[in-house]
Amino acid sequence: MAAMQNDPNKILIETIKRLLRRGATPNLRKIVNRSHAADLSIVFLSVSRPNQQNLFEMIADIEQKGALLSELDESTFLGLVDGIPVDELVKIFEHMPTDDIADLLGRLPDEMSRSILSKMEKEDSEEVEDLLSYGDQTAGGIMVPEFIALKDDTTVKEAIESLQKEHQDVEMPFYLYVVDEYGKLVGVISLRQLVVTPPSSRLKDFMSTDVFSVQTHTDQEEVAEIVARYDILAVPVVDDSNTLVGIVTVDDVIDIFKKEATEDMLKMVGVGEGFIETQSVLRSSKRRLPWLLAGCLGGIASSYVLNFFGASLASFTLLAPFIPVVMGMGGNIGAQSSTIVVRGLATGSLNIVDIWSVIFKELFIGLILGVVYGLVIGIVAQFQYSAISLAISVGLGVLASMSIAGFIGSLVPMVFARLNIDPAVATSPFMSTTVDVISVFFYFTIATKLMGM
Amino acid sequence: MAAMQNDPNKILIETIKRLLRRGATPNLRKIVNRSHAADLSIVFLSVSRPNQQNLFEMIADIEQKGALLSELDESTFLGLVDGIPVDELVKIFEHMPTDDIADLLGRLPDEMSRSILSKMEKEDSEEVEDLLSYGDQTAGGIMVPEFIALKDDTTVKEAIESLQKEHQDVEMPFYLYVVDEYGKLVGVISLRQLVVTPPSSRLKDFMSTDVFSVQTHTDQEEVAEIVARYDILAVPVVDDSNTLVGIVTVDDVIDIFKKEATEDMLKMVGVGEGFIETQSVLRSSKRRLPWLLAGCLGGIASSYVLNFFGASLASFTLLAPFIPVVMGMGGNIGAQSSTIVVRGLATGSLNIVDIWSVIFKELFIGLILGVVYGLVIGIVAQFQYSAISLAISVGLGVLASMSIAGFIGSLVPMVFARLNIDPAVATSPFMSTTVDVISVFFYFTIATKLMGM
Repeated sequence: MAAMQNDPNKILIETIKRLLRRGATPNLRKIVNRSHAADLSIVFLSVSRPNQQNLFEMIADIEQKGALLSELDESTFLGLVDGIPVDELVKIFEHMPTDDIADLLGRLPDEMSRSILSKMEKEDSEEVEDLLSYGDQTAGGIMVPEFIALKDDTTVKEAIESLQKEHQDVEMPFYLYVVDEYGKLVGVISLRQLVVTPPSSRLKDFMSTDVFSVQTHTDQEEVAEIVARYDILAVPVVDDSNTLVGIVTVDDVIDIFKKEATEDMLKMVGVGEGFIETQSVLRSSKRRLPWLLAGCLGGIASSYVLNFFGASLASFTLLAPFIPVVMGMGGNIGAQSSTIVVRGLATGSLNIVDIWSVIFKELFIGLILGVVYGLVIGIVAQFQYSAISLAISVGLGVLASMSIAGFIGSLVPMVFARLNIDPAVATSPFMSTTVDVISVFFYFTIATKLMGM
Repeated sequence: MAAMQNDPNKILIETIKRLLRRGATPNLRKIVNRSHAADLSIVFLSVSRPNQQNLFEMIADIEQKGALLSELDESTFLGLVDGIPVDELVKIFEHMPTDDIADLLGRLPDEMSRSILSKMEKEDSEEVEDLLSYGDQTAGGIMVPEFIALKDDTTVKEAIESLQKEHQDVEMPFYLYVVDEYGKLVGVISLRQLVVTPPSSRLKDFMSTDVFSVQTHTDQEEVAEIVARYDILAVPVVDDSNTLVGIVTVDDVIDIFKKEATEDMLKMVGVGEGFIETQSVLRSSKRRLPWLLAGCLGGIASSYVLNFFGASLASFTLLAPFIPVVMGMGGNIGAQSSTIVVRGLATGSLNIVDIWSVIFKELFIGLILGVVYGLVIGIVAQFQYSAISLAISVGLGVLASMSIAGFIGSLVPMVFARLNIDPAVATSPFMSTTVDVISVFFYFTIATKLMGM
């Protein structure tokens, strides 16, 4: 996926880098002003801060400047903003959609964001403050407060006139929401229906009353799930009294899905929420340190277990070389099981209702694959050392490790989900540590029985 | 994420299961006909085949039946279809969007799909066959052939009339595509623009000529990336002569993103493309077997390396208990590095142009964390055995393992991407095996130097 997609950007990045080296300002200006903000944001990842500043200043259109700021990742954004005078920032923000302003202000230091808000036009700043009052990850936090809402007794003709005069700032005006006299959401009409209905009809006569809506405090992932599941382009957001206060559009939903999937993967390796590749080496190290601790403690625990057997088991020197393969086979199949369960739960193809059928299936798969690989590795050991009790110990060790891993690898995320803990967060270190220690213990216990003390 | 989302489905699943146990057919019929197909498809994952059959037969609306079939995962679909007479299937298919028919036919055995096609109305079946002629994962394979295209000299008034009379089957009619007299794509107009423009204007006078389009053979992930990056609701698909042949809508794009992210995660643990949770235990085992082989071979290689040192190194029994922690720390940080790079490449936040800066950063992080954990584990070893040369060997072993893993964990996916091989596919086993063998080798080489033969 990655390789092919990046090709067009690769050309753009290399062209801009070459022009920057040559100092070919007129050409750069042409390219920068012709490129889409989304593409420029990717170029910015690959050029130095002073060059980012230069390129940014070459942008002629103020809306384009705002669009680029919205597309940048957090650390590039913060670096760039440092060099922009506050008054220019205010001007740029005033040309941006409200939800994007709220997003960007949320990233800035408190003091700076307050100073910008105070300099913005009152109407804009009030809308932004409203959005900022909702949680970051909720429908309220990601909605746009601009939408088309008309009274239910409006006629089609009046509706079209109102579209011509107002609502120029609505981002994706493909649905008209219908409200009663108190502003409560009662129906929805698509622009398409409006166009094909006789001008004198009233909205309430042909609107659809079956409206999916979410509340301001609904989690953003639930919002995304609803938009995706029911194939709609925008979902209306209502407050506690069912008054329409905003909409979440499908483009934001796509961003949520892109981000969530990435976050799930990163969480599973302990890099977690909001990780950004452009963080400094030290901040990245600090962030990745804690998760590695679980593996470290597990490893230390294994060393005690092994030390115990090492001191008492005569054939320890023969058995030890197989520790990596016994533990590794368990670790690998455990990673498969937990990834399958974590993703299955996230996409809805697995359900926590079916907890036991899922776990037994993974256990059973672990057993089957454990028999296969136990045989393979046992035969290799026999070939290497010609000691049948060693070969059997190794084979059974692999079998034990792989079936335990299938069981624990699926059990842990299922239990986490039941307890309403995000299964992606803590599955991996918890699982691999437990599997490691138990595997080693089983392997040597079996060997002790078979080979004697 | 998963836990909360599944709650509404959980209630639905449990209600339906309870009603099935009680045989409360009238209540079931009511619920089934009131539920959205997307929700029913999730219920179907948790009920037995005969009950799936019963529930399916309770659906009154033939379009709802088709919608449900489209939402089901492959194995549930195949099981269910087995019990539906071909003539009923044909009827259901004739009420479905063309792209969905093509999808479902692609899943059926060739003979069955041919027999269904031959019984369908000629016009429908021809459209479906056209779609089937494109690659599964290309724009042609996922597009809908229904769209609104009008000549560039059409007036607004004529355009609105044409919307009223025709194009009833267009799924998401929010853009009108403008073509020249040869059917070549020349512009696009949003429905919104149409509504607010005077009736006598001609489309060519106000259309936007800056149209993003893709070719029938464009990879579906590239299509999704374009829709997401430029925030559009549908992208037109053109053939080699720039003639408009279909559109890909944003709802299909969301499905691609949901699927791709999951597939990337599954690929990284070797469960790969098109894996489905409902596959039988044996099929799942077979699918997961090959990837585990890489780890198995790596483990066997380690056993030879260890055996070599075990035979020659006097303090082997002391050193062996720390093998798991030395290897594990490398494996864990390597998983972090490769996941960060694989996802960074997929989302565009990392670019293969910057290959060396990414790899050196990961190497540097590996060194920093290696120093931290090398110290921690070295001190534990010293505390455990009071043998300073052992403690230093273990500490340096951890340092070597973690920095090698940071380097290899980022190098491998970068190199794969450069070679146009999907970096998610082969990163993990390749990486962990290499890291394991090199780590063990370094650990014992250091120990041999420090502790003597």
